Amino acid sequence: MEAGIRIFERCNELALLSEDTDALTRVYLSEQHQQANQLVGEWMRDAGMHVWQDAVGNICGRYEGAEPEAPALLFGSHLDTVRNAGKYDGMLGVITAIELVSRLHQQNKRFPFAIEVVGFGDEEGVRFGVTLLGSRGLTGSWGDDWLDKQDSHGISLAQALRDFGLVPELIHQAKRKPDDFIGYLELHIEQGPLLESTDLALGVVTAINGAKRLNFSFKGVAGHAGTVPMSLRQDALVGASELILAAEFIAKEFDVVATVGKIACHPGAVNVIPSEVSFTLDIRAPDNQQRDAALFEILKEAKEIATRRGLELGFDCFYSSDATPCAGLLQEKLTNAVTKVQGRSMSLASGAGHDAIAIAALCEVGMLFMRCKGGISHNPAESVQVADIELALQALMHFLSDFH
Amino acid sequence: MEAGIRIFERCNELALLSEDTDALTRVYLSEQHQQANQLVGEWMRDAGMHVWQDAVGNICGRYEGAEPEAPALLFGSHLDTVRNAGKYDGMLGVITAIELVSRLHQQNKRFPFAIEVVGFGDEEGVRFGVTLLGSRGLTGSWGDDWLDKQDSHGISLAQALRDFGLVPELIHQAKRKPDDFIGYLELHIEQGPLLESTDLALGVVTAINGAKRLNFSFKGVAGHAGTVPMSLRQDALVGASELILAAEFIAKEFDVVATVGKIACHPGAVNVIPSEVSFTLDIRAPDNQQRDAALFEILKEAKEIATRRGLELGFDCFYSSDATPCAGLLQEKLTNAVTKVQGRSMSLASGAGHDAIAIAALCEVGMLFMRCKGGISHNPAESVQVADIELALQALMHFLSDFH
Repeated sequence: MEAGIRIFERCNELALLSEDTDALTRVYLSEQHQQANQLVGEWMRDAGMHVWQDAVGNICGRYEGAEPEAPALLFGSHLDTVRNAGKYDGMLGVITAIELVSRLHQQNKRFPFAIEVVGFGDEEGVRFGVTLLGSRGLTGSWGDDWLDKQDSHGISLAQALRDFGLVPELIHQAKRKPDDFIGYLELHIEQGPLLESTDLALGVVTAINGAKRLNFSFKGVAGHAGTVPMSLRQDALVGASELILAAEFIAKEFDVVATVGKIACHPGAVNVIPSEVSFTLDIRAPDNQQRDAALFEILKEAKEIATRRGLELGFDCFYSSDATPCAGLLQEKLTNAVTKVQGRSMSLASGAGHDAIAIAALCEVGMLFMRCKGGISHNPAESVQVADIELALQALMHFLSDFH
Repeated sequence: MEAGIRIFERCNELALLSEDTDALTRVYLSEQHQQANQLVGEWMRDAGMHVWQDAVGNICGRYEGAEPEAPALLFGSHLDTVRNAGKYDGMLGVITAIELVSRLHQQNKRFPFAIEVVGFGDEEGVRFGVTLLGSRGLTGSWGDDWLDKQDSHGISLAQALRDFGLVPELIHQAKRKPDDFIGYLELHIEQGPLLESTDLALGVVTAINGAKRLNFSFKGVAGHAGTVPMSLRQDALVGASELILAAEFIAKEFDVVATVGKIACHPGAVNVIPSEVSFTLDIRAPDNQQRDAALFEILKEAKEIATRRGLELGFDCFYSSDATPCAGLLQEKLTNAVTKVQGRSMSLASGAGHDAIAIAALCEVGMLFMRCKGGISHNPAESVQVADIELALQALMHFLSDFH
């Protein structure tokens, strides 16, 4: 359990690097980011790696293979956090990968490929409102206008890079070639309850869900709650309620997740029949077609409800992201490794986004999920077990033995 | 049509007495109330009535029967309005009753009973937040603390009475005895769409609905919209949606009206499963038992939903009023009269409250409803037809001939 305890303690240590004294908040290109890179860089060096900070502020380490300059198997996750964060979302994957290399180094074990570990400077997008800035530095896919984006203090991303000691004009130097890597592996907490409810420490990710987000509205006719008989109503809220239930039913039917998280009702008086209701829909699936087929059914139902109830339907898709499939070979080998250490494995989709989404543009990606207490994340209550960390480490060792 | 046009024009004339120049707003004990009482008092006198203003500011007129001091058939409605009101809610009933007396006076027709007409000073309760102040002056049922109630300018009801030229200590003088009246009749716009949708000008009210209002809440568990599978969710909004649909179904089943007019959802983010939803329920029926039986079913359904979905249910009844049945004899005679003038009649419950609710404590009450365009009221778009007013006048004449 020694290695598991060390990873656990390093998560604690990293959690001290926060802009808030009573909560963990560490954003991209901050003083705390600098401190985290220093600390993680030291751990990398201690693990026998060659260490550098790249042109967008990611901290990188390389453990050479049997032959120098061989393409690398890349391990990584992010070192930034949301505001009032937990200690494991991101950091766990980086620290565990370093521990893995440390073990190889102690055993003086080399593979035909190198191993690189990267601690991405930004995944959450808290400071500049753009996510995956770190991993999209590696893929060279920063947007043209991103350097002009400002944080809440009016500091531009370009200025923040300079303040960090980087050169905005040179960010392209962070870009890596597809040939550099034979694959990418990310260990991450699940941020959901599936593993816990299945009583498993580890699971293998099949894909990172693609998402669509829509605004819906139903317009009906306001009326007196006492004088308009049920049969003559055009109640926007009852229409919306019918669609919310239908979305739940269709999501189950199509094996996707669909959520109505916001709803507003006008005029919003106890004795007035609602004339207009607006609400959001968030729908995600590990496969774009699956997601879109479910959404098609939901929209069909919405139109049917509107027609039957004499309501005016409005909808608008304001966000769309594609699903990122995990590579079949990596899934297979991770499943074998997980089965070795915990008797059986479980395949599950990732509902949240991860650095692997960006890195998929560079090479094949795979992800290993670890259960977290109550499925809670983005919250100080985020919690993992040392025994599970130990298990993940063992699984990754098996994976490497199998992979080389 | 002459009389119908006169009533129509008097509604227009009264609508000029407003505290707003571009909207009709006339509240209790205001300068405009004083002007309205003067104008209506003149019309009463012109119609051959003895006129007085009572101790709470109602304008009253009496047309003696064949013998003096006979008990009276009381006609009435209110002269106050909501803010930005229509011209007919209340006023139509007072003005039509005066026209009826005027016609009797011209024909020198006397009945074994007197006819009284009252223009109540307050029904809507806009100024002091208490409704039916006028009619509850007649029943002597003002609450002990009402004189201390303040309007939005901090003026107490006692002070407002004094400013109006009345004496707070003498409001009991407005109280009438049950022996004074043989019945109460109120003509009012329907404020709903039933008559219009049935293509009838007039209908007879069976009862004024009793209402209950409740606050509901469902508490579930917040979660990530992407990572929590549908089967593991405790989504408060889907639970609420199910109950809103069930309330509609049960209301139809029990022939009551049920309305969810307000809803709030926490935490209210597009990508977070709702942990708590609160909403109101307004339920009304012409019969208390019928209303309570429907509510019982809705609560049963709410508990069932909460149990099945792992939600915590909360509910609280914050308002309750009894139904006011209209007297069988008055309904029968009104129905005969309406059938005479429009070929058939229609019986319907009143969803909104009326002065008749208070007067029912004094004598038997009956109400005649007139269709209004689109069922719209409490709105400048409130609209009635001259031909319908004429028909109402004829029906009330038939009623009187039958009643005496």
